[in-house]
Amino acid sequence: MRIAIVSGSSEGPTELNAFDNALYEAEIGDVNLIKVSSMLEANTKVEKLPKLKAGAMVNCVLSSLTSDNEGDELIACVAVAIGEELGCVVEANGINQNPEDIKNEAIEMVKYMMDKRNVKINELIVEEAHHTVKEIGSAIAAVIYITDDILE
Amino acid sequence: MRIAIVSGSSEGPTELNAFDNALYEAEIGDVNLIKVSSMLEANTKVEKLPKLKAGAMVNCVLSSLTSDNEGDELIACVAVAIGEELGCVVEANGINQNPEDIKNEAIEMVKYMMDKRNVKINELIVEEAHHTVKEIGSAIAAVIYITDDILE
Amino acid sequence: MRIAIVSGSSEGPTELNAFDNALYEAEIGDVNLIKVSSMLEANTKVEKLPKLKAGAMVNCVLSSLTSDNEGDELIACVAVAIGEELGCVVEANGINQNPEDIKNEAIEMVKYMMDKRNVKINELIVEEAHHTVKEIGSAIAAVIYITDDILE
Repeated sequence: MRIAIVSGSSEGPTELNAFDNALYEAEIGDVNLIKVSSMLEANTKVEKLPKLKAGAMVNCVLSSLTSDNEGDELIACVAVAIGEELGCVVEANGINQNPEDIKNEAIEMVKYMMDKRNVKINELIVEEAHHTVKEIGSAIAAVIYITDDILE
Repeated sequence: MRIAIVSGSSEGPTELNAFDNALYEAEIGDVNLIKVSSMLEANTKVEKLPKLKAGAMVNCVLSSLTSDNEGDELIACVAVAIGEELGCVVEANGINQNPEDIKNEAIEMVKYMMDKRNVKINELIVEEAHHTVKEIGSAIAAVIYITDDILE
Repeated sequence: MRIAIVSGSSEGPTELNAFDNALYEAEIGDVNLIKVSSMLEANTKVEKLPKLKAGAMVNCVLSSLTSDNEGDELIACVAVAIGEELGCVVEANGINQNPEDIKNEAIEMVKYMMDKRNVKINELIVEEAHHTVKEIGSAIAAVIYITDDILE
């Protein structure tokens, strides 16, 4: 299994457009995202996001926040733990919270999941997007499951 | 990529059944709907909804509203913009709002998405369902992604 | 089409971990769950859950409840009706309600769906998870769609 870990944030004229712009900034704006729950195959490899085919059906874990409250600090975060037998992904996000707290919470949750499964963590990656809302803003962080049929 | 654009509305004895009845009225009641986010491949063709196989796994963009408040006016709407390089779909819905406002909002949002991607709109389709709640009602509008494996 | 019907419940240090622990107890904790809407193919067979491949993409209908309110009684339930032409699944859940009421409501809803489609019910199965929250708890019931590519 191959994954890419991305993030993005943006303003937009509506909440939907702000969210779409944040996906676009993360270079996953032109595909269909199908949300899945957060498990990785044995020996998953993390890669740079390849160019995806417009309209492709792409499995992902997505953490996102959108707000129209000026000054809101949005933090969207994914924590990815990879082991030999399997891996786990955790989403976490928060508004006007300490980003370090959000990240640490995500790390604790993903460590707990791996511990429970008795899988040693070989690689632990946290990706986050910060955004301070001007008018309408969105922040996203995502794990993209890469398969050959979604590549351009 | 081939899509069909459908809508439906219905009453039912529970919210779940009203929603199911609305899907059924739209002729997508016998399949498994998997919600995806709203992008279309290059040169997508719009077709009449074919007969789908019961239990098939069908990707879709779905706008839906259900209410048990007598007299509520439900409006569920999808706006579909198709271009040569790609296409975009927007969901919008509202209760007791002017249907024209909902439609225009959807059109503005999908135009913005296409503009942002520098893709000229060759075809713009808006589909909507209206429903006035008697006891428990539901309205849905959907874009169905058609693939050979979901056909009867 | 082959399905398995499972349930589980658990405590955990966070809501996400309690939910993950409940999935794990139901032996669907190591896969990616993709939520689909609730229709079964003609002559669906119910099987014992096979061992799933870690990280597999698994279609499911999922009923779940999570709470951090000590003493809450969580009930998560799925009702599955199978007929010759197709089948239907209903999710129902409730907090601090009579479990029999939740089950009966699910049964009524799924019977209504089958009646509406004029399909005779050959098999009706209800699966439920109960959980009394100690600190943070979760209960889940699920229908898993089994395909060869998700097996270990």
